[in-house]
Amino acid sequence: MNDCIFCKIVGGQIPATKVYEDNDFVAFLDIHPVSYGHTLVIPKEHFDKLENTPEETVVKLYKLIRRLAPAVVAGSEAEGYNLGLNSGAVAGQIIPRRKNDGLELWGEKEYQGNMMDEIAKKIRAAIKQALN
Amino acid sequence: MNDCIFCKIVGGQIPATKVYEDNDFVAFLDIHPVSYGHTLVIPKEHFDKLENTPEETVVKLYKLIRRLAPAVVAGSEAEGYNLGLNSGAVAGQIIPRRKNDGLELWGEKEYQGNMMDEIAKKIRAAIKQALN
Repeated sequence: MNDCIFCKIVGGQIPATKVYEDNDFVAFLDIHPVSYGHTLVIPKEHFDKLENTPEETVVKLYKLIRRLAPAVVAGSEAEGYNLGLNSGAVAGQIIPRRKNDGLELWGEKEYQGNMMDEIAKKIRAAIKQALN
Repeated sequence: MNDCIFCKIVGGQIPATKVYEDNDFVAFLDIHPVSYGHTLVIPKEHFDKLENTPEETVVKLYKLIRRLAPAVVAGSEAEGYNLGLNSGAVAGQIIPRRKNDGLELWGEKEYQGNMMDEIAKKIRAAIKQALN
């Protein structure tokens, strides 16, 4: 897509610090890392939502991330990692974690009253419908 | 594992608000949600790191998440979602997102000087070694 920064990276119009590339995927360092070594893994073909991405591509992406993650941790001299997945433009994220790095995921909320049960009911119904 | 909260949920020793269950996986609402409808999807068998989890299980987990995520969004009356993956005890996370929900992922860092290139070099070397 014309306005997609990932497509411009794949096409070479925007420079990126690549750490891995094959026929189907590119891995490169995020220029605004949440931790040093934060690596994005993207399919060369543009997909704009996980549910619009062919199952085969998602499977390949995760097989690749599973192989790359420990190497990204080792190369980043980190102790572990978190994974994320952008679903805007589909991109896997490998976020190296170090002891006492102070990173905190989004703040937590609490459910009040019977809100949890109410939401669960709606989600169950939606899942039932989706899987039928 | 004895001290794993997910295994206790699977085994029924700890109650959970389940929204989906099949032979291999359970999906339930996080009791400390980062957004309402925040859903965890876990394999019934305990795996403690993505790289120690059989590829087949990871593939099944992601196929399932890909099918559940839009339903979790619909049931949560949200507009989109983020996905995450815990690699401590392996668990997929579906985080429904709403316009102006104010959620912000971890703060961003900047690379100074040639730090980005230096880390990239080390990661490339580690990946090369891992894939050989």
